[in-house]
Amino acid sequence: MADSLQINSERLWQRLQQLGECGALPGGGVSRLALSKDDQAGRDLVVSWMQALGLTVHTDAIGNVVAVLEGKNPQSCVMMGSHIDTVSTAGLFDGNLGVLAGLEVIETIIEQGTLPECSLAVAFFTNEEGSRFAPDMMGSAVFNGSLPLEQALATQGIDGATVSDELAAIGYQGGAQFAPVSEWVKAFIELHIEQGPILDQQGVDIGVVEGVQGISWQQITLKGQSNHAGTTPMAYRHDPAVAAMQCINFAHNLASANEGQLATVGSLELKPNLVNVIPHTASFTLDMRNSNEQQLSGAEREVDQQLQALAEQHQLSYSKTSLARFEPVPFHTGLVSRIEQLSQAQGYSTQRMYSGAGHDCQMFAPHCPSAMIFVPSIAGISHNIEEFTSQPQIEKGANVLLKLVMELSNKDIDYV
Amino acid sequence: MADSLQINSERLWQRLQQLGECGALPGGGVSRLALSKDDQAGRDLVVSWMQALGLTVHTDAIGNVVAVLEGKNPQSCVMMGSHIDTVSTAGLFDGNLGVLAGLEVIETIIEQGTLPECSLAVAFFTNEEGSRFAPDMMGSAVFNGSLPLEQALATQGIDGATVSDELAAIGYQGGAQFAPVSEWVKAFIELHIEQGPILDQQGVDIGVVEGVQGISWQQITLKGQSNHAGTTPMAYRHDPAVAAMQCINFAHNLASANEGQLATVGSLELKPNLVNVIPHTASFTLDMRNSNEQQLSGAEREVDQQLQALAEQHQLSYSKTSLARFEPVPFHTGLVSRIEQLSQAQGYSTQRMYSGAGHDCQMFAPHCPSAMIFVPSIAGISHNIEEFTSQPQIEKGANVLLKLVMELSNKDIDYV
Repeated sequence: MADSLQINSERLWQRLQQLGECGALPGGGVSRLALSKDDQAGRDLVVSWMQALGLTVHTDAIGNVVAVLEGKNPQSCVMMGSHIDTVSTAGLFDGNLGVLAGLEVIETIIEQGTLPECSLAVAFFTNEEGSRFAPDMMGSAVFNGSLPLEQALATQGIDGATVSDELAAIGYQGGAQFAPVSEWVKAFIELHIEQGPILDQQGVDIGVVEGVQGISWQQITLKGQSNHAGTTPMAYRHDPAVAAMQCINFAHNLASANEGQLATVGSLELKPNLVNVIPHTASFTLDMRNSNEQQLSGAEREVDQQLQALAEQHQLSYSKTSLARFEPVPFHTGLVSRIEQLSQAQGYSTQRMYSGAGHDCQMFAPHCPSAMIFVPSIAGISHNIEEFTSQPQIEKGANVLLKLVMELSNKDIDYV
Repeated sequence: MADSLQINSERLWQRLQQLGECGALPGGGVSRLALSKDDQAGRDLVVSWMQALGLTVHTDAIGNVVAVLEGKNPQSCVMMGSHIDTVSTAGLFDGNLGVLAGLEVIETIIEQGTLPECSLAVAFFTNEEGSRFAPDMMGSAVFNGSLPLEQALATQGIDGATVSDELAAIGYQGGAQFAPVSEWVKAFIELHIEQGPILDQQGVDIGVVEGVQGISWQQITLKGQSNHAGTTPMAYRHDPAVAAMQCINFAHNLASANEGQLATVGSLELKPNLVNVIPHTASFTLDMRNSNEQQLSGAEREVDQQLQALAEQHQLSYSKTSLARFEPVPFHTGLVSRIEQLSQAQGYSTQRMYSGAGHDCQMFAPHCPSAMIFVPSIAGISHNIEEFTSQPQIEKGANVLLKLVMELSNKDIDYV
């Protein structure tokens, strides 16, 4: 295979636009909720492209679709992929890029005429977004054995429909059964938009993703005593709003002072929420993330200690509920380094980074060498109809994917 | 008149209980919104007591009721009073005590048989609470010429009804016309529950009220950029929630460090208010109070400067709207001192204080010597069915009112 081989950027771009027409919103962007009629239309379109390339298309019981180009040694496979379901106000790139770039890589390899050593596969996984059915990353979790199929099928969506019924309704409950990933997938690679501002703001071409951050979501509720704002001296107050503000400030300062730690308060409620009444209850969510589990646990502990001190100081009671907790997922260090080298060999600038969002790839990471390639998101905007990545930026990402997959399909590769 | 004269505590207590039956709530407490059928029942009951004492009862065009015991010199009058309308979840004491204690003082003076030098009056003013019709202190404002009658009558309530229609419906739109307060009211005295915790927590009998605090209500809105909580590094954020928390902390610390300054954030809203989304908007109310206008203006300025600095630091826009702004109202220093002396002469403990809430008395203060007497509120609870002041505490307050009014009705008094 020639080192100079490049993907067809125009073909990839046009497919992104065409897929974006399935569930297109009047004002731009797209809404293609998992297992909806629009999702069906998107699936049918992508499957038609897979079939047109002569790939063997497999659909499993949770609706994951895996298209395979058989290699000289079909027992082993390099897999690419992502998802084509979207949130209800999405752009054209989140998920779709990883699927269509995988297809483009396979088409480019077919066109150059040499059969790869191992098989190549491109997949799209059911319900990565989780906007209609919880949990997110459902299809890739079932594919990797970390979510029981029966549980996933029985899941009821926000509209009351079940995964099982909706899969049947759109005709994507298939019969394909795959061997455990560790036995046949040589590597899993996902190209994705960053969904954050770092690459765009720093003018970097390729994000070399070292892993996915750990996530801690807590709901913290402080309870004090409601009182008259005009007749209660400051020293007599048991004001949970003030303690909440101080706790939030503490978490913010902690994150700002520790590289790699994030802390966000996105939701907050005071009760009774009246201008002249000291609240009796303040409740807020705290979203903390870190790529280092020890640091993430440490931040949780520090916030907890601060919360306890503030509750004592203001004479309040408090409670904490964990809404979500995931440890960080590191990607395969050999693959990560190779993505960096191949990018630089193409003349692309790179930056190592952790993904702040969850991705299908993290479901593969415990079972086979896995890694992700990021391309810039303009202004970091995502899950929004304004989400955008330019054609030249996409071309670079897809070319890195091409180089890596061509290399991985070689039987002599030694870093995975 | 004998120095040993005391009010009849049991009679006053029973009247408080009887008035509390008009609009009684099933679980205790009372709801007697201004100009409602329950207010009408309460008015009818109090007027029947006024008439039974042989007082001349006047009702003016805004429904204020003034009952007069004519003295030797009827051109001059010492007036007592407050209001009998309540919030929708009220106790039995707020307002009602000032009216019924005034009635009790007059009955006690009638019983001892000597006609007072000047006239004595007890009044209840329409819609002090403002829960149904804005603004609050409506009747006393009209009575003192600071709110035009026509404007008050045209006011539409939260249920769509107008003051004018509702006054007519309950039969309390009267024809009485009074001379300007400055020409005939020698002094206005209002007995009231504290509605705060100071007297109760310090075990003090009588609050000697020096005036009413100034009030500043602001709505502050900060706007930044909504973004993904997992993919946006701390340094790239324009998070209005964090700036709001820091501003609120600043106001809290400012108030805590400056005796007499209060600051309360009772209401706060984040948008879009989701756990994993950095908000684009944070909006909150700031209630600041101080008995010193210069200090209150200074606190407003300091918060404003801090807000500006935070907006610059986080690269946010912000706006402020004044929801209410009243300067402090000082009471008559001669009356204030005399209340203190008379209380102590009865063996009651006293504490000078400012009222944190608004009262009818403040409408009189610019026009005639005016003052208030506070009795303790258990745990400072008010505007709540749990509001309570014991019979012995009420007796002390009413006796101070009696002593003061008896003295004021003397033609030789020299401190007003």
